Amino acid sequence: MTFLLAGASKTEMKNYNGNGLVYVMNPHLDLMDEDILYHLDLGTKTHNLPAMFGDTKFVCVGGSPNRMKAFAQFMHKELGLEGDGKDIKDICAGTDRYCMYKVGPVLSISHGMGVPSISIMLHELIKLLHHAKCRDVTIIRIGTSGGLGIEPGSVVITDTAVDSFFKPQFEQVILDNVVTRSTELDRDLAEELLECSRQIKDFPSLIGHTMCTDDFYEGQGRLDGALCSFSREKKLEYLKRAYNAGVRNIEMESTVFAAMCRLCGLKGKTEGRSGFKFVSLLC
Amino acid sequence: MTFLLAGASKTEMKNYNGNGLVYVMNPHLDLMDEDILYHLDLGTKTHNLPAMFGDTKFVCVGGSPNRMKAFAQFMHKELGLEGDGKDIKDICAGTDRYCMYKVGPVLSISHGMGVPSISIMLHELIKLLHHAKCRDVTIIRIGTSGGLGIEPGSVVITDTAVDSFFKPQFEQVILDNVVTRSTELDRDLAEELLECSRQIKDFPSLIGHTMCTDDFYEGQGRLDGALCSFSREKKLEYLKRAYNAGVRNIEMESTVFAAMCRLCGLKGKTEGRSGFKFVSLLC
Repeated sequence: MTFLLAGASKTEMKNYNGNGLVYVMNPHLDLMDEDILYHLDLGTKTHNLPAMFGDTKFVCVGGSPNRMKAFAQFMHKELGLEGDGKDIKDICAGTDRYCMYKVGPVLSISHGMGVPSISIMLHELIKLLHHAKCRDVTIIRIGTSGGLGIEPGSVVITDTAVDSFFKPQFEQVILDNVVTRSTELDRDLAEELLECSRQIKDFPSLIGHTMCTDDFYEGQGRLDGALCSFSREKKLEYLKRAYNAGVRNIEMESTVFAAMCRLCGLKGKTEGRSGFKFVSLLC
Repeated sequence: MTFLLAGASKTEMKNYNGNGLVYVMNPHLDLMDEDILYHLDLGTKTHNLPAMFGDTKFVCVGGSPNRMKAFAQFMHKELGLEGDGKDIKDICAGTDRYCMYKVGPVLSISHGMGVPSISIMLHELIKLLHHAKCRDVTIIRIGTSGGLGIEPGSVVITDTAVDSFFKPQFEQVILDNVVTRSTELDRDLAEELLECSRQIKDFPSLIGHTMCTDDFYEGQGRLDGALCSFSREKKLEYLKRAYNAGVRNIEMESTVFAAMCRLCGLKGKTEGRSGFKFVSLLC
């Protein structure tokens, strides 16, 4: 794994190397008396984060609050925990920006729609896992997506997130500098998830590239937005080029997700189910 | 007002010119049998949009669902409508992507955080207002923002939204072409709102540029994200340059809001209150 954070020193990386902790690449944090995770309604002084989250091993994130609640309830059942899980509590109930549920070692969190929205959540989630001293955490984004040349209902397990120009990169504006970050995801985890999915009947799944756009209508070639200046032919020609570049589905969060996971030592993966309104865990 | 939509013909614009209707710049829409506003859980066949929304004159949008409900309840009281407004119904209750309340001629809608999230809502809102045959609609974005060199609690009424490089433009990726759109807002409306605010005691308000970033932490010079590679000095130097370019507050939605309002004939305005957690209507 290569770390691409602009300005991260070798010493910083060495401190974390190989201990399974979640990296925070910010020297200023050590100087702060208190860290308030504003959009999660949590903080280092108001909450005992190691006690609340220290045993977390899996983080599953998705756009919709209702779906992430349903996913937590599904996990509650799968893990054979006590009770029916119906009264599961939103840990972020004090804010309506995101919701968060914890079920055994699994955290289920919503992130809204688009790169900026998931990015705020990821900054605060990564700091949360860091403060809680979590180790060897795997993070999986699950969500709906538009499939490209694949059977409806297929699950695409992303190997690399690409931008609207099919490039495997995320352009992060830092102050007014543009920094390019890699968007490759964990190949072993992808293979593992694919293997799991093959054990489930009628569960078409594949590994492929996922394209991330900043717009649902004009950016993804939809003809039914309030604005549309291209023809059906132009749209199809673009989608064909995307397919030829290895893209198998389109969504709106994967590039920043991949970039931040790589930088902070989280084994990350996104899965998008095409044509379904509800998401499923693969294994 | 200049319309900048790539590919919009003069005839299209002429059809709308001067009648106060909300523009939809998409020739494909006329050919569709049904228009489903998926993220609002509304549609042209399932809902009588002119009956439900035809009298709308003001649309107020903001990030948080709870705040937009509270704003609708505030408007209910201000307009002297019957009842206490506590049981006000979320028109988009069938989805958890956005919430929407209607109080007399005022629509109050949440849009989540960031350009992609508000952009999906705006596409569907503009089509909604178009299908409902609304006329002379004013849209105002109200929200919290980071103030720059101004008294905490001040309300910035935006004249122009600028990007992270202080440019008055929004770069829209259409398929894989980058189209630059203007982000100027309605000057008369800004002056009108400023005049209203002056009639309220202890309500500091000013007209200025608003900077829109795609990131809350690294993009806005915050030192407390999970990633930070710049010094406090570099941050201050950047913010000083922003101030000198006319920026008075920073948020995450104004450029696409301004660009889409201009294109679709909505008198648009954003207001951000600096340092407050709750938003207030100016007049």
